[in-house]
Order: sequence, then C-alpha cells, then structure tokens
Amino acid sequence: MKKVEIFKVDLKDRSYDIVIGPNLIGAAAEYISPLIKHKPVIIITDDIVAKHHLNTLVSAIEGAGITHSVITLPSGESTKSFDEFKKVISAILDTNPERSSSLIALGGGVIGDLVGFAASVILRGIDFFQIPTTLLSQVDSSVGGKTGINTHHGKNLIGTFYQPRIVLTDTNVLETLPKREFLSGYAEVVKYGLIGDKKFFEWLEINGQALINGNEDLRRYAIMTSCCAKARIVKRDEKELGNRALLNFGHTFGHALEANTGFGSKLLHGEAVAIGMIMAFDLSVLMGLCQKEDAARVRKHFLSIGLPTQVSDISNQNWESQSILNYIARDKKVQNGKINFILTRGIGDVFMSSGVDTADLLNVLNQQTEN
Amino acid sequence: MKKVEIFKVDLKDRSYDIVIGPNLIGAAAEYISPLIKHKPVIIITDDIVAKHHLNTLVSAIEGAGITHSVITLPSGESTKSFDEFKKVISAILDTNPERSSSLIALGGGVIGDLVGFAASVILRGIDFFQIPTTLLSQVDSSVGGKTGINTHHGKNLIGTFYQPRIVLTDTNVLETLPKREFLSGYAEVVKYGLIGDKKFFEWLEINGQALINGNEDLRRYAIMTSCCAKARIVKRDEKELGNRALLNFGHTFGHALEANTGFGSKLLHGEAVAIGMIMAFDLSVLMGLCQKEDAARVRKHFLSIGLPTQVSDISNQNWESQSILNYIARDKKVQNGKINFILTRGIGDVFMSSGVDTADLLNVLNQQTEN
Repeated sequence: MKKVEIFKVDLKDRSYDIVIGPNLIGAAAEYISPLIKHKPVIIITDDIVAKHHLNTLVSAIEGAGITHSVITLPSGESTKSFDEFKKVISAILDTNPERSSSLIALGGGVIGDLVGFAASVILRGIDFFQIPTTLLSQVDSSVGGKTGINTHHGKNLIGTFYQPRIVLTDTNVLETLPKREFLSGYAEVVKYGLIGDKKFFEWLEINGQALINGNEDLRRYAIMTSCCAKARIVKRDEKELGNRALLNFGHTFGHALEANTGFGSKLLHGEAVAIGMIMAFDLSVLMGLCQKEDAARVRKHFLSIGLPTQVSDISNQNWESQSILNYIARDKKVQNGKINFILTRGIGDVFMSSGVDTADLLNVLNQQTEN
Repeated sequence: MKKVEIFKVDLKDRSYDIVIGPNLIGAAAEYISPLIKHKPVIIITDDIVAKHHLNTLVSAIEGAGITHSVITLPSGESTKSFDEFKKVISAILDTNPERSSSLIALGGGVIGDLVGFAASVILRGIDFFQIPTTLLSQVDSSVGGKTGINTHHGKNLIGTFYQPRIVLTDTNVLETLPKREFLSGYAEVVKYGLIGDKKFFEWLEINGQALINGNEDLRRYAIMTSCCAKARIVKRDEKELGNRALLNFGHTFGHALEANTGFGSKLLHGEAVAIGMIMAFDLSVLMGLCQKEDAARVRKHFLSIGLPTQVSDISNQNWESQSILNYIARDKKVQNGKINFILTRGIGDVFMSSGVDTADLLNVLNQQTEN
C-alpha cells in the first residue's frame, strides 16, 4: 500500500502540493530543497512542538546543507496576537530577509495562521512552507490559505488569503498528540462528511474508532479525503465570496461557545464545532428541514468515539443562552445586519440560509443549556 | 477642453479607475456611491489634510446620504509605524465592520500606504477608495497597489500588494500644497520621462515651469501621463518580479540619502529621488554607458525649476560616502548578495543592471559629497 500521497491544491499560480505520509519531517529537505531560493530559511515553531519535532527538522535540513535560523514562540491561542505578530515580524526582519527568502511554519493552527500572515506581509510577500503538527491543522488550516490573528474584538479579524508553497503532513506527529487534541481535529474530519459526502460519514462510522486508535492507513485516507474536500470548495471560492462559507458548518454556534469559555483549553475548537454541528442539526430539525433520525445518527457517532454533543458536557461552565445569542449576532458572519446560517437537509447536504429567526436559535440554545 | 479624465488601471479582477480633474472631493459621492456596499464608510485622514479637505468630503457624502465615521491620524512619515497601524486597525474594528465595508484614504502617500495596508488585512480584505492629496501620491502611490509601513529595519518592509476600488485625483488640492512638496512630487513626474518617455521629458522642459506655477490643464496632462506610464509597467509586472523595478530609478541612492537624514523634512522623498536620479546618470556616465550631455541636461532642468541636484544642496547635513554605501548594501534591492542597480543609456532609456561595482558607487558618492 502506498505510504505517501501527494495531492495538488489547484489555485492557478498559487497552486501547491500537500504531501501526506509518515516521517515527512525527517524527509523535509527532499521536498523543500527544490523550493528554496535563498538561505537561510527561518523556522518558526512553538515551545511544545519544538520539544517533540524541532531536532528532527533541524537535522534533516542541516543534513542537506540548508542553513537556517529558528524563532520559538509560546504555545497557545494567545500567540495569535498583535504583539506576538509584531515580535515575530521584527525577529524575521532581524535576519535581513530578501524577497526570495522563505519561512517554515512548524506547528498547529496557531503557528500556521501567524506565520502565514507574517509571510504574506514581509517585503509584501515571501514564501512559506507549512508542517502542520495537529490533526486539526492538517485537515483544516493547511488547505485554503486563510491566515490571521485575533484582537479583543474577535478571532481572525485581521489576516490575509495567502497560500503556502508546500504542506508536509507528517502522520507520525499524531502519535505525540494528546487524545483530546486528536478528537478535536477528528470533529473537523467528520464535518467534511456532514457537509457534502455522506459516504465518507458512513466510512467514518465504520472506521472512526480504529483510526482514532492509531491505524496509520486509515488516518492517511481520512486526512487525504478531508484535504480533497476542502480543496474542491476552496478552488471554486478562494476568497470566500460564496460556497466556501459552507466550511463554517457548526462554526457559528461553535465560535460563540468558544468565546463563552475564553477560547481556552476548557473547550477546544473541534469540541466546540462538534457541539455546534449537533446544534445546527437540531435547528434544522426544529425548522422542519431535516429528519430527526439524521441528527440522532450524528449524535450517536460523536458519543461513540468520545466527542461532546452538548454544552452540559463541559464541566464548570455557566451558559447563558441570551449571551451566546448576543455573541452570534455580533459575529462576522452577519451581512447587512441579517443572520446567515448554515443549515442541513440531512447528512451530506448542508446549505446557506439567509435570515434565520433568532427565536429558533434561542430555542436550540435553551434546549442545550437546560440539559 | 475636457476637465475630467478617467483612466482605467487594467489588472483583471482588480482593475480600477483613476479619475483626474478639479473639485473631485466635492463630487466624491457621485463616484463612490455606486461602489459602496455597506454603510457607514470610514474616512481615514491626517490632521493637516483634515483642516483643508475633510469638511468638503464630509459635506459631499452626507449630501448623498452616505453615513460615515472619521479617524484622524497625526501627519508625517512616523504615522507609517506598527503602533499607528495597530491603533488604526483597532479603531476600524471598533466600528464593527463587515466584509462589504469600505475605507476612504484622504491624504498623501503616508495615509494611502497605511490605509491600503489596513484595508488589505481587515477581515482578510475590504474595499478602499483613495483620494490622494499630494502630487507625489497622485502620480506615484495611487497607482500600483503597494501598501506598507516602516520599522526600524527600514521603509516599507511590511505591507501587501492591494488595489483600491477607485482613485479620485482632485487637482484643486494641489493649490494648498506647499511649493516644496509640489516640487518633490514633480521629481517623480520627471522620472517617468527619464525612465521611458523622452518626449515627455522634452514636454516638461518646455511646460514644467508653467505647470509648477499653477496651470491646471498642464497639471492634469502631466498627472495623466505619469499615471499611464506607471500603470503600463504595473500591468505587466504587478508583483515586481521584473520590469516594475525600473520605477525605482534614482531610488536606491535616494533611499540611502533619506535614511541618512532620518526620513524627515530635511530631505523630502522627491528631493532625494531627484538627487538619486542625477547620481544614477553620473554613475552611468562614469561606466561609459551614457553621454555626459544627457546627465547635464537633466541637471539643468532640475536647477531651472528648483529641485536639488547634489547632496551639498541640503544644508546642515554631514555626509559620509561609506555610510551611505553601507546603507545601500543593506537595502532591499539586494538579491543573493549582489547589488542590482538601475542605470541609463540616456534620457528615456533606463535598464536593470546586475552586479554594479561598489567602487564605482563610492566614486559617485565621493563626487557628490566633496562638492
């Protein structure tokens, strides 16, 4: 069986390959050497990822004669701030980069989003290579070129659309990932089934547990399928003017829940999205758009593999339906004052609806918070 | 004679019009109303420009029923800093913008560069309309989509390529512009003749003084010709991978001189470029590429209209050839360690040369600083 898959994200002159397979950090030089126009390359990572994977990467590129410097940032969502952005920009400029210089983002979504944003504005755009080290970043942020940082106004309100030159998705890194982090990424994998691929959801119902338990071939297939699904959508709508928004299924509720818990470790992004997708199914059932059997089936799969399905699964947290609704109303997915919402007609069949009634939203929120 | 010219900068889906004529700020609503998708619009200006032109703009858009908010920044190059960028971003986010929101940049190059950069990263890109209020910004930064800010590492090292939706070039604003500022912009006008249009240079030799003295029709023609020249080059090379660099004629020396004077009012950008272009001619003569009569003719024109031609024209400034050369060596126009330089074979015939000898550069710098 083939151990390395190479998948091309087709975006004209911004096209790039996603390479998926084992031990790719150790083989990084083979893939990035042909893309390096100027040395040294600058590796940017966080302190936790550095412990597990930096030596492997450094050995690999040193072995190939690629000079480098390393910038290590604190791990965690708070690194996606204006102040850390300024620091990393300054550290990059300290290395006297040229327009042919390149960055390597070694880390999860936080590092990928921050480094991608930095690459897009240094000398008005230099190359970057992405090595995502969480399942979430492998199946989500490594495809599509969204970069960004947070402010007190909200998440990802500042950023660019900017594509990496290559993505190396090393499936071995998942072995050092805590199970809860893995499941958080798995929620986004399920999402691709729910939004447009019922067969993939059915495959996950059968293979999900074995995949979570560590089966390498199943993991590679699931990552590949997820990246393909996202790339198909992004190709048609790179700048999110239309259908790309479907990728936000479950995210409107999810972001509101994350905001409520302070975007911290109390509720991980994928956990929030899992609950958010359940809520979007419940809302669709409530509005008479979706069979309740479909909602029950998704809930059952999440419960079986250990993902949360309701806010009461999050301990020590007060939930106020009205404050969550207020957050949603302020969220960036509001256009011309109307609340657009991604609803579903069933598994694999989501769609964008405009003008969803806030009373229905509140109803679903109350169901959740009363449990 | 036609009083308003409309000129299309053709960049596919990023194309936009430059409208050139009198009283366009007062007529702004007519041009921007069709482009506004979401209100309020956010006007960003500086305190000096605000005194002269903000009321006119606000009356115009209020008269058309366009709601707005205003952000006023300190005037001067120091506003193109990370800290002011963060402040303006935060002020824009305070207005709770949507992806269909838009900004109006009312000001010179500093405001245009800063607001363009902000527009390119707010919600990963919102629209902006540009109303350049200096001759320099009308003929230079309003065409081509370069945005950016400075750090202590250098000028414009952080930014994006991002195009406005429309540029309103109101020739009346030049009446409130100090003569020295006007001449600084005029140096960039002459540049378009020197780099590729000898006939335009000859036209300026005849009409330059009358244009500087206030002739409206001549000003409109010179601005239009300059914008056309820049747009032709930008269209072929939007991201500055090749010929666009020719627009930097005189700028390598110029930037070094500006750095030496602290980028302040002691030496304006256009003045530095004027001296820089003379030095590039002298260098080309020294290298046997250009007739010395051509260098003399450019020098004569600058002297006749009051632009500086040598560093000794700048009073109270110590010049060290070696430190200027060191700055050039660190400048961003260095690729793979070699100094690329834009040289000339004569008026209207510049070209990119790679690997210019630093001894020749030092020779020209010594000629300048010994005078």
